Amino acid sequence: MNSQPHDHILKSHDEERRILLEEILRMGEIAASQLEAALDVVERRDGKAAERIIANDEEIDALELRVSHDAMKLALRGPLARDLREILAALRIASDIERIGDYASNIAKRSMALNLSPPLPHTRGLGSLGRLVVRQVRAVLQAYRDGDAMAAETIRADDAEIDAAYTGLFRELLTYMMEDPRVITPCTHLLFMAKNLERVGDHATNIAENIWFQEHGEGPMPPREKRDETSSAA
Amino acid sequence: MNSQPHDHILKSHDEERRILLEEILRMGEIAASQLEAALDVVERRDGKAAERIIANDEEIDALELRVSHDAMKLALRGPLARDLREILAALRIASDIERIGDYASNIAKRSMALNLSPPLPHTRGLGSLGRLVVRQVRAVLQAYRDGDAMAAETIRADDAEIDAAYTGLFRELLTYMMEDPRVITPCTHLLFMAKNLERVGDHATNIAENIWFQEHGEGPMPPREKRDETSSAA
Repeated sequence: MNSQPHDHILKSHDEERRILLEEILRMGEIAASQLEAALDVVERRDGKAAERIIANDEEIDALELRVSHDAMKLALRGPLARDLREILAALRIASDIERIGDYASNIAKRSMALNLSPPLPHTRGLGSLGRLVVRQVRAVLQAYRDGDAMAAETIRADDAEIDAAYTGLFRELLTYMMEDPRVITPCTHLLFMAKNLERVGDHATNIAENIWFQEHGEGPMPPREKRDETSSAA
Repeated sequence: MNSQPHDHILKSHDEERRILLEEILRMGEIAASQLEAALDVVERRDGKAAERIIANDEEIDALELRVSHDAMKLALRGPLARDLREILAALRIASDIERIGDYASNIAKRSMALNLSPPLPHTRGLGSLGRLVVRQVRAVLQAYRDGDAMAAETIRADDAEIDAAYTGLFRELLTYMMEDPRVITPCTHLLFMAKNLERVGDHATNIAENIWFQEHGEGPMPPREKRDETSSAA
């Protein structure tokens, strides 16, 4: 009879952990969709849709607040080490997702600026980089859902592919700018958009590292390859 | 006689909190110095010094690991709400400082690429933006040391000044690129360096917000002005 209230507390704790996980996954799904939609409005030069993406970012921000609140509530119950790792990973992952949402919003914003100049054929490379990145974000969210540290490690290694694609695109855009000074301003936006995508890849990597942390504690993951090669382009 | 061991535990807990604070402040000081040094090597076109700045970034990364470790140790003692807010703020602030260090390192890296083309007169604007940003980073670290939420709020409002300076510099660099296609590649580096500085300003703002959080909990700070206007430059 004494175990009844205890079971109830445990169940409620598990329930709250489940809700926290669902909230973060929902944030992540919205951010991934925002990113896809942002890449789409670049292609379609759709200013109205871009405005909607920017407005939607508030939803991610609101969710992050709720996640923080719920994680705090859980933390205040005096959790064990594994629980606390989950809580901290949750906070950090929420923050990474919040940034991914910001980047999606920024890409949408830049697409509106791009629409003020004549159409460019140079947005195709951005789209293909973007698809790589969206795939990466989705994969890491799945690994988070599954608590799969092995998958997280693979995803983290895959970031090298994004970095290579970004470096190629960066160099390609520079040649367009050199060939025709009239495209400098729009290509500058494309450069920053490409950079935003590369940064989203880094946030996916952060999330992968937090999954590892949650499962294994602070043990180091294997070292990974260098990120962005364009910083040293001459 | 019973209070003796209790006092001892409290003292040791306070002592560990003090050590955690000192570690984060040390990280912050190194990051601020790295940033200053990075701005300096742009001006002086000093590749050797740039390499040192890049290598030094490992020290910040190592400190962040230690901060995480110490914060975890503290969190596992079953702290009260205020203690836990301190711990979470510490983790987040450490992560922001880690990013500031990365940006300093990236500016140094780009300065080496810049050194491969003839000297440009356009690095002056970057220096003056950089000084604003370094001042902001130092100010927010001081507010953290003092646990001063009022100062944090002021610092957060000051980020608008950085954003205005960054926007001006961004537009100036675009005009140089349009006037002379040969400077496109180096000016692209300058654009990204300016963007890095603007991002450092955002991380300073994050730190200010975490100081507020630590002192007042999740109560909202007043809304702040928009960040980067260059995303919509046409």
